[in-house]
Amino acid sequence: MTAISNKVINRLTLYHCLLKYTCKGKPFIASSEIADLLDLDDSLVRKDIALCGVLGHKKQGYVVDELKKSIEQKLGFSERKEVFIIGAGSLGTALVNYADFKDYGIDILALFDNDPNKIGKEIGGKRVVSLEKLSNLISRINIKNIILTVPPQAAQEVTDYAVQCGVRFIWNFTPTVLRVPKTVTVYYENIVSSFMQMQNASIA
Amino acid sequence: MTAISNKVINRLTLYHCLLKYTCKGKPFIASSEIADLLDLDDSLVRKDIALCGVLGHKKQGYVVDELKKSIEQKLGFSERKEVFIIGAGSLGTALVNYADFKDYGIDILALFDNDPNKIGKEIGGKRVVSLEKLSNLISRINIKNIILTVPPQAAQEVTDYAVQCGVRFIWNFTPTVLRVPKTVTVYYENIVSSFMQMQNASIA
Repeated sequence: MTAISNKVINRLTLYHCLLKYTCKGKPFIASSEIADLLDLDDSLVRKDIALCGVLGHKKQGYVVDELKKSIEQKLGFSERKEVFIIGAGSLGTALVNYADFKDYGIDILALFDNDPNKIGKEIGGKRVVSLEKLSNLISRINIKNIILTVPPQAAQEVTDYAVQCGVRFIWNFTPTVLRVPKTVTVYYENIVSSFMQMQNASIA
Repeated sequence: MTAISNKVINRLTLYHCLLKYTCKGKPFIASSEIADLLDLDDSLVRKDIALCGVLGHKKQGYVVDELKKSIEQKLGFSERKEVFIIGAGSLGTALVNYADFKDYGIDILALFDNDPNKIGKEIGGKRVVSLEKLSNLISRINIKNIILTVPPQAAQEVTDYAVQCGVRFIWNFTPTVLRVPKTVTVYYENIVSSFMQMQNASIA
């Protein structure tokens, strides 16, 4: 995947969702229809799609299957991305069960937790492993991505440990801002922010 | 809350997380420390904070408690925002259990589902109600916000029904782009997009 802006990634992912579910079974789609459904400017949609190297057909628009595959290629959905989930609570469980991850190449290998009642059990077909084993597993199978779903009070301590173990990318679902070395990237899944944006839209 | 841009809302929410957890117990914080932790420009942080009407003290920076309260006021965390969750699966369960929602004024009143095995039970202290009762409950207690966590294949049908029932704001956790009338606002919690952005950063 060549570097494209986060905004474009965000929109292309939404177009893909649209083609996958909303337009399922439809042969063609016009950029204006995508624009309308997502409340975007038509010219912006066409520009994004041009980035994927897809050309529209006059009158009929884009071939749905072709456009869907081009987005998958552009965003690298077929490249397997192995991740561990740290925190086998209800959010960790929900993410393991999020069936769509597979279609994006996101492969959750295991969950980690320090609760003896959870260790050794399976959640959504994945094993819950003791957090103590993280270091060993990372060095054996060279995983650099984790999804962090521990309680906020534990987030920094677990992060320090994970970074020591060799983790380089943290997809952070906790409401905690993490102190990490410059070599580590944190992505904040800032859930509450979306809600506040929705509320703000309701007033504006 | 006066209208502020989504980017500012996003950053202010992160500053708030930072003050709440990362800086817990600290009396002061400098804008440069916030900027550093979130990999932002110092001047941007100061501009955002100025929007909240808080002035920093020379040398010491901002009073943590004061800044935290000002962000809460600016973003309207103390205003109660009542919501229903539609879809009592693992993601709905995770969101009910997301303790931090309360601090932002987000009050989940009930979950709705059409699974007879779930209806009548409680999840995280909230009742699971039959989806058939949505119309009646909305007209009785005038709720306009829903969190949508149904399977993607059911998302459009449930949305059509919810809109008919009077729902006006949909916080959409499904990977489905929804067709709604112009009077309805959909917020996409585009989970996969964040992951793709993280991957993109790892290549760039």
